[in-house]
Amino acid sequence: MKLPDGLLENIRAKTPLLHFITNYVTVNDCANITLACGGSPIMADEASEVAQITSLCSALVLNIGTVNERTLSSMLRAGRHANTLGIPVVLDPAGAGASDFRNNAVKLLLKEVNFTIVRGNISEIKYLSHGVASTLGVDASAEDRITEDNLKDALRFAQNFSVATGSVIIISGPIDIITDSGSGYVLRNGHPMMSTVTGTGCMSGAVAGCFLGAGSARPLDAAVSATAAMGVCGELACEKLQRVGGGPATFRNLLIDSMSMLTDSVLRDRARLQQVF
Amino acid sequence: MKLPDGLLENIRAKTPLLHFITNYVTVNDCANITLACGGSPIMADEASEVAQITSLCSALVLNIGTVNERTLSSMLRAGRHANTLGIPVVLDPAGAGASDFRNNAVKLLLKEVNFTIVRGNISEIKYLSHGVASTLGVDASAEDRITEDNLKDALRFAQNFSVATGSVIIISGPIDIITDSGSGYVLRNGHPMMSTVTGTGCMSGAVAGCFLGAGSARPLDAAVSATAAMGVCGELACEKLQRVGGGPATFRNLLIDSMSMLTDSVLRDRARLQQVF
Amino acid sequence: MKLPDGLLENIRAKTPLLHFITNYVTVNDCANITLACGGSPIMADEASEVAQITSLCSALVLNIGTVNERTLSSMLRAGRHANTLGIPVVLDPAGAGASDFRNNAVKLLLKEVNFTIVRGNISEIKYLSHGVASTLGVDASAEDRITEDNLKDALRFAQNFSVATGSVIIISGPIDIITDSGSGYVLRNGHPMMSTVTGTGCMSGAVAGCFLGAGSARPLDAAVSATAAMGVCGELACEKLQRVGGGPATFRNLLIDSMSMLTDSVLRDRARLQQVF
Repeated sequence: MKLPDGLLENIRAKTPLLHFITNYVTVNDCANITLACGGSPIMADEASEVAQITSLCSALVLNIGTVNERTLSSMLRAGRHANTLGIPVVLDPAGAGASDFRNNAVKLLLKEVNFTIVRGNISEIKYLSHGVASTLGVDASAEDRITEDNLKDALRFAQNFSVATGSVIIISGPIDIITDSGSGYVLRNGHPMMSTVTGTGCMSGAVAGCFLGAGSARPLDAAVSATAAMGVCGELACEKLQRVGGGPATFRNLLIDSMSMLTDSVLRDRARLQQVF
Repeated sequence: MKLPDGLLENIRAKTPLLHFITNYVTVNDCANITLACGGSPIMADEASEVAQITSLCSALVLNIGTVNERTLSSMLRAGRHANTLGIPVVLDPAGAGASDFRNNAVKLLLKEVNFTIVRGNISEIKYLSHGVASTLGVDASAEDRITEDNLKDALRFAQNFSVATGSVIIISGPIDIITDSGSGYVLRNGHPMMSTVTGTGCMSGAVAGCFLGAGSARPLDAAVSATAAMGVCGELACEKLQRVGGGPATFRNLLIDSMSMLTDSVLRDRARLQQVF
Repeated sequence: MKLPDGLLENIRAKTPLLHFITNYVTVNDCANITLACGGSPIMADEASEVAQITSLCSALVLNIGTVNERTLSSMLRAGRHANTLGIPVVLDPAGAGASDFRNNAVKLLLKEVNFTIVRGNISEIKYLSHGVASTLGVDASAEDRITEDNLKDALRFAQNFSVATGSVIIISGPIDIITDSGSGYVLRNGHPMMSTVTGTGCMSGAVAGCFLGAGSARPLDAAVSATAAMGVCGELACEKLQRVGGGPATFRNLLIDSMSMLTDSVLRDRARLQQVF
């Protein structure tokens, strides 16, 4: 199955401005992958300015990786304002399940804000859906891992969560799942090296924001394309890494480099996308 | 026209300590370019310690990229204390024009603190001067872009803003403008790759802090030298990038690497500096 | 003298989860070196969640590099909770001596929390011990520098501070000192390039957290192994840098890369460790 064509080129033509309220661990990576993808990032988390910043932007990305009371309140304001203006919003529930504070934060965010896309690992999304935590920090727990055996169950689960929230759901992992209420996709791109650096998940959310912000993709297409773009860049970076040598820090640079050089045709040729329903 | 000689060497001989209150997006880049340039960075934003930290330092760099109520108050304290002690202060009005909060923040900073150097893109500086925003996030808007055609107007505008503030003004862009009330310079260094990564503007402010902090340059010379140093390093990094291959993440590394290897003689040979008045 | 064997392999087998409350300058480097070493990092500083996050983890790392009133309170909560649960805690007193706020912060932390390991440069540790500051920002001051001449005094001083605190003490520098109340070690690994980038000290603390968190090393062995691992990786990165060319930014990447490829046998072969008492 082929991805829709021309979406990356469209991002680069439009340079969508993205507002991030995100964690301070991977924020620089999120800014740089946004630029590499063709968007323009602005980070702003002061409660008294976030609504106004959001209103300048084509998409809002909320990531709770290092959320606190102050920035949660800013996320709620920005998210509600984005909803009012019809600006798409991405949620990355980083570490959901790991603490009551974080759990209440995502509960509140999901209650108060309509998210266009929710992107997390399987443990985080399971927590959001069932309220039962198997999260181990910010990584998916082994017991939750999606395999060929439990893939259909995971898709069904993601679809149900999409129905409940009205959001397109991306579950990132060795096998990625992307679904809305009506269609479900499986994507088999990416490389294990991607989990050796921090921030590849956060960067996926940023890239999803770019595809949404450029405005001509349906949310499901934006989610599939963004997930494929990250996976393909992971593969390209790894192929280059095998030629030049190096470890995770070099890989991270090559990943961002690859995004800046990715074209729609390479993306479509390499995406291993399967529509399941 | 030649840059003053020996200023880089002087920074490396003195290792000036720089106090930063800056955004969490590019803070690591600011720290590393400061080290590469020969300075020593300390980041501290707790209101109850900033005056004391500033008093240890040879320059203070304030960057409002992710400013909030708390850190704005710290910036004001640190800035006023620097003024009292005669320590030079750099302002980077990142994103000025983008929100009322940010606009009030820069208004307050400009009212309460005398800045030695103000460095921003054309849209930010225009906002500071006229109070009219054409800022699109943290990048200059296309309509504002300085070209050979409007260069003289831009210089006059920057000079007027310098007269009004008493600060040396750096307007960064494809063509850089540096001016105080009496002299105006145009610098034609740098490379478009510099806008493909986040932080090159912020790093320019850091480098300006290094030249100021080392103590033997007049503010105008510090501003011109710092702007030239960033531009020349952008060119050197790009030349290396063309040999080794890669994209923006590799470029960012090469930019910082280049600063660490830059010498006064290379800087003076490559700076394309023109005095206009 | 040889390091204990198998400790790195043990980290990679157990993937210890580490809770960081750390500065926003080098936080990304700390996360990536933790992953490269075999651990899994989670950064969380909201006071209402830190105890719960700590309780999920195998070690807690507190770094006061950009501490403020809010995060100090979170550090105290997390530290006390770690003590209650018997979870090892690392303190990095970044910039101790530079301001009253920072000095009171470390005083409070040392009073309220039992640290398994305290890691700092000589000026910071001297401040903690004597309450007299010669700190210049976040770097050791020249007058404090440990040389072959004052090495015995420095060891004795570190031992006394270890007796007073009950913590293993790591003094990082050109010559590293590691001591508890009964034994003292000198380590002669590392490279001057390590001080040309920000974060190598912070990363040492992160690596110490990995060795502690994996659970099978005595605190003194964890401290010695972590310090040796950072020093050896600094050397390996520098050797590679000499082959491929580049400056500090490239070096930083090679340092993290080296940690991901480091094995126990290389670590033991290259560690230049001497037991002094």
